[in-house]
Amino acid sequence: MSDSNFPTIGIVSGTGREGTALATRLAQAGYPVIIGSRTEERALQKARELAALLRNAGLDPTLSGATNAEMAEKAGVCVLSVPFPHVLESVRLLSFRPGTVVIDTTVPVAFEGRSARFVDTGGRSVAEQIQAAVSPGVHVATAFQTIPARILGDLDSPLDCDIFVCSDSPEAKRVTMDLVRPIPGLRPVDAGSLAEAGTIERMAVLAISMNLRYRVKSARFRVVGL
Amino acid sequence: MSDSNFPTIGIVSGTGREGTALATRLAQAGYPVIIGSRTEERALQKARELAALLRNAGLDPTLSGATNAEMAEKAGVCVLSVPFPHVLESVRLLSFRPGTVVIDTTVPVAFEGRSARFVDTGGRSVAEQIQAAVSPGVHVATAFQTIPARILGDLDSPLDCDIFVCSDSPEAKRVTMDLVRPIPGLRPVDAGSLAEAGTIERMAVLAISMNLRYRVKSARFRVVGL
Repeated sequence: MSDSNFPTIGIVSGTGREGTALATRLAQAGYPVIIGSRTEERALQKARELAALLRNAGLDPTLSGATNAEMAEKAGVCVLSVPFPHVLESVRLLSFRPGTVVIDTTVPVAFEGRSARFVDTGGRSVAEQIQAAVSPGVHVATAFQTIPARILGDLDSPLDCDIFVCSDSPEAKRVTMDLVRPIPGLRPVDAGSLAEAGTIERMAVLAISMNLRYRVKSARFRVVGL
Repeated sequence: MSDSNFPTIGIVSGTGREGTALATRLAQAGYPVIIGSRTEERALQKARELAALLRNAGLDPTLSGATNAEMAEKAGVCVLSVPFPHVLESVRLLSFRPGTVVIDTTVPVAFEGRSARFVDTGGRSVAEQIQAAVSPGVHVATAFQTIPARILGDLDSPLDCDIFVCSDSPEAKRVTMDLVRPIPGLRPVDAGSLAEAGTIERMAVLAISMNLRYRVKSARFRVVGL
């Protein structure tokens, strides 16, 4: 069931583990979702697979596939689900329409054996750098960095956590917080500007580190007292 | 009631709001607490005030007062509760005994009007800089940065959150996590090394920012899925 008031959400690199997990929950919540990939074939295949999986779970998802480039020109809201080392390069190759809200989910992490390390991106958050890389009129917000794909993609796992939303655009922040709200178990929290997204990017690495240290795959955050 | 297995805990600058809040909960949990101040008179006065307050709440606290310098030489565990701008200078003036565990609670925050801003301390966490400033054999751990003094100091507020503990010394980390555990409503979480304390210092500023943005004084964190 997709609510006609719900915007269509494109997922750049939606065929990976994080992208698929996001598509799963967004489609479950009723959003029409376009899965993006470099090739249309892979995007369509993943959309078909995921649609079958969700229908098996009793849902009626609205899922389609497209190239990242085509999707960026169509969707009013695009979620970036590109692995950290490639995200800036990918963004520079896409032409988002003016007015598009781009939701960055990037975690600047590097793995060394069984430990995860925050990768300093020159004192500016990844999100700030993405905002600097897109055309004027395209507004970046951040969300979903701190929730593990394993939990997000598993419809049987209650989410029960907060999503920290940062943006320099009040409108993009509002759109992103409204987008999170219908997903059961998630609460959007206003976490400030894109400069402050640096804190959230580090928290995502902390969550990964705690997962490795405590041998779980489920560490995520809830703000108490809000 | 103080458990004789509980170490005595000194609080450097224990007469301020944060220090008093910490002393309150530590004494409530049964720790003998020494409140430190630059002058013995202020320390003793604060210890008397706090003891009276806790006895009125039906507790039997073990509280005393001393100069910061005297306390640093006596207590096996010293909590730093010094405002950020002065903490390094204060630490350099103290002579901790070898083997002392120094628990840093510093939040590198600056206020501008109604907003709070993280103060970058040159790419290294405050905690790393404190470890570099103390004598060899003195081990720094971090804790309590992300819990608001208002909640910590109010015996009627359930705490219901996690305390992130970082250290480069496994022994100091263990001592600090063990110290947190008896405080009802707090769970210690191993958050890694002193380099990773930079993430927790930023999270503390995020909590303060959320407090200002949402007009509360209670924002704190819980890790879900651990």
